[in-house]
Amino acid sequence: MKIRVTVWNEFRHEREEGKPKEIYPEGIHTAIKSFLDSTGEFEVRTATLDEPEHGLTEEVLDNTDVLVWWGHRAHKEVQDEIVDRIHERVLKGMGLIVLHSGHHSKIFKKLMGTSCNLKWREAGEKERLWVTDPSHPIAEGIGDYIEIDNEEMYGEFFDIPTPDALVFIGWFKGGEVFRSGCCFNRGYGKIFYFQPGHETYPTYYNKDVQKVIINAVKWANPVKRTDSLTAPNIKTPLEKL
Amino acid sequence: MKIRVTVWNEFRHEREEGKPKEIYPEGIHTAIKSFLDSTGEFEVRTATLDEPEHGLTEEVLDNTDVLVWWGHRAHKEVQDEIVDRIHERVLKGMGLIVLHSGHHSKIFKKLMGTSCNLKWREAGEKERLWVTDPSHPIAEGIGDYIEIDNEEMYGEFFDIPTPDALVFIGWFKGGEVFRSGCCFNRGYGKIFYFQPGHETYPTYYNKDVQKVIINAVKWANPVKRTDSLTAPNIKTPLEKL
Amino acid sequence: MKIRVTVWNEFRHEREEGKPKEIYPEGIHTAIKSFLDSTGEFEVRTATLDEPEHGLTEEVLDNTDVLVWWGHRAHKEVQDEIVDRIHERVLKGMGLIVLHSGHHSKIFKKLMGTSCNLKWREAGEKERLWVTDPSHPIAEGIGDYIEIDNEEMYGEFFDIPTPDALVFIGWFKGGEVFRSGCCFNRGYGKIFYFQPGHETYPTYYNKDVQKVIINAVKWANPVKRTDSLTAPNIKTPLEKL
Amino acid sequence: MKIRVTVWNEFRHEREEGKPKEIYPEGIHTAIKSFLDSTGEFEVRTATLDEPEHGLTEEVLDNTDVLVWWGHRAHKEVQDEIVDRIHERVLKGMGLIVLHSGHHSKIFKKLMGTSCNLKWREAGEKERLWVTDPSHPIAEGIGDYIEIDNEEMYGEFFDIPTPDALVFIGWFKGGEVFRSGCCFNRGYGKIFYFQPGHETYPTYYNKDVQKVIINAVKWANPVKRTDSLTAPNIKTPLEKL
Repeated sequence: MKIRVTVWNEFRHEREEGKPKEIYPEGIHTAIKSFLDSTGEFEVRTATLDEPEHGLTEEVLDNTDVLVWWGHRAHKEVQDEIVDRIHERVLKGMGLIVLHSGHHSKIFKKLMGTSCNLKWREAGEKERLWVTDPSHPIAEGIGDYIEIDNEEMYGEFFDIPTPDALVFIGWFKGGEVFRSGCCFNRGYGKIFYFQPGHETYPTYYNKDVQKVIINAVKWANPVKRTDSLTAPNIKTPLEKL
Repeated sequence: MKIRVTVWNEFRHEREEGKPKEIYPEGIHTAIKSFLDSTGEFEVRTATLDEPEHGLTEEVLDNTDVLVWWGHRAHKEVQDEIVDRIHERVLKGMGLIVLHSGHHSKIFKKLMGTSCNLKWREAGEKERLWVTDPSHPIAEGIGDYIEIDNEEMYGEFFDIPTPDALVFIGWFKGGEVFRSGCCFNRGYGKIFYFQPGHETYPTYYNKDVQKVIINAVKWANPVKRTDSLTAPNIKTPLEKL
Repeated sequence: MKIRVTVWNEFRHEREEGKPKEIYPEGIHTAIKSFLDSTGEFEVRTATLDEPEHGLTEEVLDNTDVLVWWGHRAHKEVQDEIVDRIHERVLKGMGLIVLHSGHHSKIFKKLMGTSCNLKWREAGEKERLWVTDPSHPIAEGIGDYIEIDNEEMYGEFFDIPTPDALVFIGWFKGGEVFRSGCCFNRGYGKIFYFQPGHETYPTYYNKDVQKVIINAVKWANPVKRTDSLTAPNIKTPLEKL
Repeated sequence: MKIRVTVWNEFRHEREEGKPKEIYPEGIHTAIKSFLDSTGEFEVRTATLDEPEHGLTEEVLDNTDVLVWWGHRAHKEVQDEIVDRIHERVLKGMGLIVLHSGHHSKIFKKLMGTSCNLKWREAGEKERLWVTDPSHPIAEGIGDYIEIDNEEMYGEFFDIPTPDALVFIGWFKGGEVFRSGCCFNRGYGKIFYFQPGHETYPTYYNKDVQKVIINAVKWANPVKRTDSLTAPNIKTPLEKL
């Protein structure tokens, strides 16, 4: 059975004249859907902020194994009720891939419990993402590093919990480093944060970046479980007291 | 300089007739303050739910290095504004020791980002807490294990992020295990969750339990930092682009 | 392509009269091969201590994706040269599943760098292995816990490095706990240590135990990489100095 | 009581004419001893390769809380017997600080269980070490980063186990990153690997580098324990079976 992916995008930048629209005329979500589709391994739909319920109805989430998230300047417009809905789903197993400026999205901050603050600079500088966990499935097919000619700088200290796996560390020409590819287990769900993807650069056309996101979706596909994440009172001890 | 500790207690159980009042006539907070005081290494105050601002004014928190938290049945009565205030302090470095049923407190859940659910049973059964990180300062002075004759059972799966250090694993006579002593780094702050301490058993008179809490307060004392946890735009690159 | 698995067994206990022979008349390796074969997903061979080069020639290892290891009383008879050969392969990506008393094998100790000591008792007591990482692929299909009626007790402190993932914690009726299912990444390889499997109990016929080992073999299958684990002198900087 | 520190140095480079001798005329060990002494908190001695038993007799190690290690071109000359002696001490609690090219020392490789390989380049380029674990005691008193004008480049993939804490990530002008400050718990002992310190640059006169090493020595000071790291047979169960 194919993994069912929903690619969510704020989809505001690309509807105005400017760089983002030139690079992603049909939106970042469509570009991501496109390379996911090309693998033949996923069943992909998209959803955007300005749809009813941001396109993330109960029914859509019922049919989502992995949710991909791109947001930037309208984080505050995402309704708390929808954030809670996604949060609950992740804890029950739904995978979540958070891209770039999604570090400050409500859902990511709620799952991390920290400010998710970082240093930043928009100067189109070179980034090189080094593999630091080469046995991780998300790094499969990637060489020593990924090179991106122009990216927004994101720098440490990145206020996140220690990742369960640190797959990539980013080097920026201007002098900073960043934990650019981070895995987190939360509840029965898996989360991957991946730093590249500023809206004014063609990052999601980079083949290595695409490979990482494809790998991440497969990795985040939920492990099937029969038990539930409630807090049961086990009145009868398993063993004689 | 002495570490400034604030011991916070819900202080509801112990004001009604019953076991908790018999065991802790002046409240759990007073019992904890007492053994912390006896070390001579701390400057200890207490705060409780029914005080104005739950006793946790800006001024009190300004003078708190480490906050100890015991809550149980009135988690919902803790005001969100005060929770946010504590949350912000922890990210800026204040230590936090969360005891027993505090696993479901608003502040702990907010910092963890998960449900913090667990299995439970109140049967006064034996618990044995095994040291699994013997080089950790919180385990100093503890032998192979701590034995507690009567405790509430807390069992896995405990829905928390992977701890940064797992200092104790609890064995329960009725058949369960639990990650009973867990360290978490969040922002510039350190958090220790410690499972023993049900209100109907005299757990906080146990010398080993006291030793662990004393060690934890010292460990959680903030590392002094001069940088701030904001998200600065570093306009001028450190290096020439 | 099927995952190529080599199941290695010391194969001494089962060649003498006694419990092990009664339970595993053709050897523990044959029992493990049998349930791996039944999945249709693996190409399985076996190897034992008393074969030339312990059955682990360069050619066999060249054709092994994942090596499963059971050893107990003859750890010292395993030649250092073969241990070095396996060690090198693991760092280059070969998966390794170490079972039960393999905790004291030369290869496991060499990979861990610690004594791998533990407490133990042979009393045929009940063990219950609780899932503590429910999103991990090794826990797929397992409920809240696995119950084994009779096992050898292995107890903490288990002198290993902190696992990269702690999938199971074992509860023993006699009063101990144990980190019973531990993942380790080393070099390009993945290692899983799984505690059940004493030779005098029919543990490897337990369906849940079999499921865990099957899951572990799939998880440990190497991620394909093109880079090599050498220590290259990068004389020409990637960027202008 | 003062922490008893032994600073070990290969002490070969600095006895020949050349840069190392110019920078450290009395040896790297003496330079390190000097800034440790200046704190008044340590009792420091030194030991070098060409002394009998490399200066690391049983008696010296009996009186060492933390061992600092600098070695480079003569790793192979360190006797295996002495390496085993140190290894055993670390597992029993002795702290170990491994500096720079000590990544390829016998003792570090034995404790890690991996190749400890890395990429490298000697071009005197700029390094900037970013703090990634600001609540860690080893980072106390350090700002956002440490800047070193000239260092040898060490680059990822660094073949080590996942550190128990990652305190610093290094940025190199030539384009690489490195996990430059790594904590490891092994047995009852704590290990810190710190990457700066090539013999042809005056790195150990840098105040921030000194501060880190001072902090690390305090952090690695052993937690006092009464239990022993043996593998005892616990014949009598703690609980009735």
